[in-house]
Amino acid sequence: MSDWQAVADEVAEKLRADAVAREERGAEPHAEIELLRESGLLRLLIPAERGGAGGDWPLAHQVIRRIAAADGSLGHLLGYHYFQLWRTRLFDNPIADRLERDSAAGNWFWAGVSNPRDAALELRPADGGFTVHGRKFFATGASVADHLIVSGTWTHSGRKATFTLPARTEGVRFLGDWNNLGQRLSASGGVEFTDVFVPEGELLGHQPEEGEPRRWRDSLAPLGFQLLLAQVQVGIAGGALAEGARYTTESSRAWPLSGVDRAADDPHVLAAYGTLASRLTAAELLVDAAAAAFDNATREIDERKRGELGILLAKAKVVSTEVALEIANRVFELTGARATGAKYGMDRFWRNVRTLTLHDPVVYKATEVGKHLLDGEFPPVTGYS
Amino acid sequence: MSDWQAVADEVAEKLRADAVAREERGAEPHAEIELLRESGLLRLLIPAERGGAGGDWPLAHQVIRRIAAADGSLGHLLGYHYFQLWRTRLFDNPIADRLERDSAAGNWFWAGVSNPRDAALELRPADGGFTVHGRKFFATGASVADHLIVSGTWTHSGRKATFTLPARTEGVRFLGDWNNLGQRLSASGGVEFTDVFVPEGELLGHQPEEGEPRRWRDSLAPLGFQLLLAQVQVGIAGGALAEGARYTTESSRAWPLSGVDRAADDPHVLAAYGTLASRLTAAELLVDAAAAAFDNATREIDERKRGELGILLAKAKVVSTEVALEIANRVFELTGARATGAKYGMDRFWRNVRTLTLHDPVVYKATEVGKHLLDGEFPPVTGYS
Amino acid sequence: MSDWQAVADEVAEKLRADAVAREERGAEPHAEIELLRESGLLRLLIPAERGGAGGDWPLAHQVIRRIAAADGSLGHLLGYHYFQLWRTRLFDNPIADRLERDSAAGNWFWAGVSNPRDAALELRPADGGFTVHGRKFFATGASVADHLIVSGTWTHSGRKATFTLPARTEGVRFLGDWNNLGQRLSASGGVEFTDVFVPEGELLGHQPEEGEPRRWRDSLAPLGFQLLLAQVQVGIAGGALAEGARYTTESSRAWPLSGVDRAADDPHVLAAYGTLASRLTAAELLVDAAAAAFDNATREIDERKRGELGILLAKAKVVSTEVALEIANRVFELTGARATGAKYGMDRFWRNVRTLTLHDPVVYKATEVGKHLLDGEFPPVTGYS
Amino acid sequence: MSDWQAVADEVAEKLRADAVAREERGAEPHAEIELLRESGLLRLLIPAERGGAGGDWPLAHQVIRRIAAADGSLGHLLGYHYFQLWRTRLFDNPIADRLERDSAAGNWFWAGVSNPRDAALELRPADGGFTVHGRKFFATGASVADHLIVSGTWTHSGRKATFTLPARTEGVRFLGDWNNLGQRLSASGGVEFTDVFVPEGELLGHQPEEGEPRRWRDSLAPLGFQLLLAQVQVGIAGGALAEGARYTTESSRAWPLSGVDRAADDPHVLAAYGTLASRLTAAELLVDAAAAAFDNATREIDERKRGELGILLAKAKVVSTEVALEIANRVFELTGARATGAKYGMDRFWRNVRTLTLHDPVVYKATEVGKHLLDGEFPPVTGYS
Repeated sequence: MSDWQAVADEVAEKLRADAVAREERGAEPHAEIELLRESGLLRLLIPAERGGAGGDWPLAHQVIRRIAAADGSLGHLLGYHYFQLWRTRLFDNPIADRLERDSAAGNWFWAGVSNPRDAALELRPADGGFTVHGRKFFATGASVADHLIVSGTWTHSGRKATFTLPARTEGVRFLGDWNNLGQRLSASGGVEFTDVFVPEGELLGHQPEEGEPRRWRDSLAPLGFQLLLAQVQVGIAGGALAEGARYTTESSRAWPLSGVDRAADDPHVLAAYGTLASRLTAAELLVDAAAAAFDNATREIDERKRGELGILLAKAKVVSTEVALEIANRVFELTGARATGAKYGMDRFWRNVRTLTLHDPVVYKATEVGKHLLDGEFPPVTGYS
Repeated sequence: MSDWQAVADEVAEKLRADAVAREERGAEPHAEIELLRESGLLRLLIPAERGGAGGDWPLAHQVIRRIAAADGSLGHLLGYHYFQLWRTRLFDNPIADRLERDSAAGNWFWAGVSNPRDAALELRPADGGFTVHGRKFFATGASVADHLIVSGTWTHSGRKATFTLPARTEGVRFLGDWNNLGQRLSASGGVEFTDVFVPEGELLGHQPEEGEPRRWRDSLAPLGFQLLLAQVQVGIAGGALAEGARYTTESSRAWPLSGVDRAADDPHVLAAYGTLASRLTAAELLVDAAAAAFDNATREIDERKRGELGILLAKAKVVSTEVALEIANRVFELTGARATGAKYGMDRFWRNVRTLTLHDPVVYKATEVGKHLLDGEFPPVTGYS
Repeated sequence: MSDWQAVADEVAEKLRADAVAREERGAEPHAEIELLRESGLLRLLIPAERGGAGGDWPLAHQVIRRIAAADGSLGHLLGYHYFQLWRTRLFDNPIADRLERDSAAGNWFWAGVSNPRDAALELRPADGGFTVHGRKFFATGASVADHLIVSGTWTHSGRKATFTLPARTEGVRFLGDWNNLGQRLSASGGVEFTDVFVPEGELLGHQPEEGEPRRWRDSLAPLGFQLLLAQVQVGIAGGALAEGARYTTESSRAWPLSGVDRAADDPHVLAAYGTLASRLTAAELLVDAAAAAFDNATREIDERKRGELGILLAKAKVVSTEVALEIANRVFELTGARATGAKYGMDRFWRNVRTLTLHDPVVYKATEVGKHLLDGEFPPVTGYS
Repeated sequence: MSDWQAVADEVAEKLRADAVAREERGAEPHAEIELLRESGLLRLLIPAERGGAGGDWPLAHQVIRRIAAADGSLGHLLGYHYFQLWRTRLFDNPIADRLERDSAAGNWFWAGVSNPRDAALELRPADGGFTVHGRKFFATGASVADHLIVSGTWTHSGRKATFTLPARTEGVRFLGDWNNLGQRLSASGGVEFTDVFVPEGELLGHQPEEGEPRRWRDSLAPLGFQLLLAQVQVGIAGGALAEGARYTTESSRAWPLSGVDRAADDPHVLAAYGTLASRLTAAELLVDAAAAAFDNATREIDERKRGELGILLAKAKVVSTEVALEIANRVFELTGARATGAKYGMDRFWRNVRTLTLHDPVVYKATEVGKHLLDGEFPPVTGYS
């Protein structure tokens, strides 16, 4: 196990210790981001030559899994942080180097503003740059971020552009209106841009125009995104199983008719934990394989590689979704009635995976896999595949 | 459909309208009990000659299902009300007639204090009656009840006795400490008895002594109790399905790749709703059959009839548990991500069934059924079977 | 239990006794039909005034379930026999009375030739009647039948007509080519008609022409058909569970690590049998409810009643399909490895339900239920709904 | 992909081409073993210095998976062949080198005789060696093997010994009595030894005596065995999915109400194939991980490593069992009714996995995993763990 995994375990243990209380308070997760910041984990993926730890995606995913097991929201935030900073490199724009250096130096936390199902932000040329105007309904992590990567559309040309800016820029308002079933500390509320000025130098680049040849590397973004969701899902599932096992061994009472003295010796409890743990390990290996394939694709990619990665990711999404939901739901059967006490907060795992797994309908991921199996087709490039 | 079912539908609609808000407030359900009281439903099972509506158990169960669909806690409370008042008749004690008459006249709401997994309340003879001392950790509905049926154990003989008393008797304190995942308005907190005096005339009777011939009718109580849980479970499941269907048709957006304009035309949404609805109907019919068998058993019972009823009930518990959990969990896949908004409270169904289905471990109900199938054995008579 | 159920149990026991051997021989089920004939069961649904036993559909379904439990093919054949004879009444043609009287007197076994997915048989007017020409790929029971009900299309008008004829009519050839995974004794091979002459008096009637008002009673046929499939499915499932339970108690060895002496005391075996038995009872009750509703609909029907029956049937198909497949598949886990010995033939249940449940894709039944739940629509009238 | 995987693919394609016909004939798989022999695959695991191909276990497992996908019985036989030859090395007896050299030179096919649930074979000292007497009920591959590895018990000491001998030795009789549901070509019938003489030089070694320190490497045998079963299971599942996909695209008809022209475009068919393929990939990765861990353990092992391997293998068994059963059962829903035609033999996948997955009850594998999760215990060393 790498040092960074050990660091992640340490941070995770701190997050786990008061996860229930923190969620109940429901404050924006500033303190939690500080914890990540101090641990050095925010710099994990930045190359050493620009001040980072020089880790790769598979390592980042091991870290995300550990954090998500302790606190689904924080795993989510950390995964997106890695992802949003990494996205700055997709435009072959030299400012990406500067952003990484600044990010390492400032120990920045990143978030993105680009939910594809909302109307686009409006961009208008202005002296020395451009202005941004509009509203996005969800922007995970933005309100606790130092720096943002944002997508918008030029009002005059309809072309889609991506740029960065400090989160505390004038005219950017965080709505703090995320109030959903799960991932409650993921700071996923809306953002409003009111004539926000962005200097030209912060423009990362544009999406290809109709008819331009596709650069396959650009199309990795939605896949990396899906991978993160799958990872957070198995992470939360692992957290639920571990928390359940702890409760069962320490607190559950054996059922009078079970013929055993400890709940942890009940044959049904044992077999059920074993079945769930087996499925989880299979799901984790599938997500691991997808993370390794994603990492390869960041170095070398073409249509076929992109397609095969898409299929592997879709599989990871399908399996991680069903395993995470099953574990988070069934773990209660193994802990027993008293574990429904509000103070244990054992429902947070279910609420988190139930929320996260709805990000986009998983049956359409299964459909992609089926289409490939039957007809050899690869998933289309969309905001979700 | 009987008039009483229509009355139940009307009450249910009122409960449904503000179910999310009421649960969030988390007040003791006094207003809700008033709603039941005014509707006349509290008198449903009392014979006409003693001032009630003369309904039978199958009708009561239809009513409970409707109320539970709108508000799981209230369905639970109403079911237990019927059950606790009915239990007064099991002792062949003439005071049962008086209790029914008083209950009808006063439009009482009943609750019980007899959780078999806690230590017993202590009974000590006193002048003209006896005193009750001790604490029970769970007593669903007691804190909002008018009258209680209570079990305790004579300290001098160790024999178990059952009696009734007004809920507002001096020395009875309701702890208001129910703070669990689900069934949050079921007023299931603990009760403390501090030297509570009960007049002799309120003693209903005793459990048979070791060696006394069993009266099979007495042994119906744990079965009626299990039946209520199964009923509330299918009721909540029906509520979840109906609420989900409402959301899907009114609010869900079709997925862009689905090729349809309405989420309600998505083939996966349609097939999933249909599958869940089919399983629910099967579960409802099984609970109906158990309710009819229970009703028969209240009139005529012997060892074999008791055993067969126990098996049918165990089956109803097994099937209602799995169907209710599945529906409450999966309905989110059919409504989509935005339905996780806290304001919709769509998780209340899952929280309610997740809590209720843990009352006693269902795998031991399945075991009873298996034992009967393989060896022809009937379930033992216990507090749960 | 009625006398006819007892008769069915007796016949079932005989069929069960040599079910494995008979299937292995694979002869056309003539002897089995004789067994049914001698029992009197073939006349069960014929009114007493025309020489039958005057039973109703719910009773017929109880009988079918019992026979199907012992031998899925024979349950299938008997169910179709009832159904094909009953269909003669749908045309309000007085010859139906004569057919019933002749059927009762001759103790006929009926089958039908009308598979909707094949090309239609061609009908051409001829002196005193008409000729039939063409081929049907599947016609369950036809080769062992005494009398057939057949559908075909007039070559000159394209209108669809239904008629009856003795199975041994000149020009009718049974292809004996049914060689499928399951229901191997169901005599479901093809039939070829070569210029078969049918006298005019055997014409039962025509399907309504485009624009004619629908007679709802006619539209019951596809529903009755679906109901039979659901019934045979739960019947076979019950047979599998009973056979498994017999094997487990009589022949299975306890697993060394189970800590018990008998396989029938293994906690996992007990809980699994109990779970399967619980699901089966729920499915049976759903099929029972559908059978009762079908019986009502034969007496009184309109669009709404037809629609509600269709939904109930679709639910019965969905639930019976999943329960039957699960039981037939999982029962092996409860009997253990040696029960895979060919001599036990324990796979016949799975082969039978696997074959039967594919008759038409059950996901489209679930879709009908979903469409009704979401939009209140009733299933369209088709050959399968 | 290695050359050997390509060789395996070629052999697999030949086996697949007539798998249905060969199984129907039911001859002992001599021709199939010749096919394996000619391909060179039998020598895959033998080190190059002794005339083999020098492959490792992970490569062998890739080969087994491919063969099992085409023909479950042959995958089973090949896996056991590798395993039985490999077992000769566990005794640190120099004859193992000679056996490998002879095996490579003679291109031998190996099988074992050691089913732990039968009574032991009796060994008695004889001049220059010993005699073997007794009967084993199952000995997969023995009747088509060139050389056998056999376990027996000294009648005078009760100690358990292992030795090898040519399969065609006088007094060895193959009963040819394997007639089970699946794996029909696995030549798994019984073997009878009648005073079979074995020269002393063929004795490989003894099991440790009570109190002797355990050599952890010896305890790998039952794990390697379990791993092979898991591998053959995922192999067969892959074969079922591929065969189903072929049928669906080439032969299935779209359902009239599906709104599509090809069955392969039916949304339910696509999503179901995708779901099954996703689960299969997860299971394959888990078996891959177990194969890699097993390979490591053959080089370096201690109590902890053995225990962790045992847990990983138990997980692989649990997941491969459920995935293989599900795919083999459900693939019919995706091919449709006509694919039940006997000529397609689509049921062979289910029959094979249904038989194989019963080798030992998987719920006790889940129990091992649960015990480890809850209490940190490793599986005990038994004939199955």
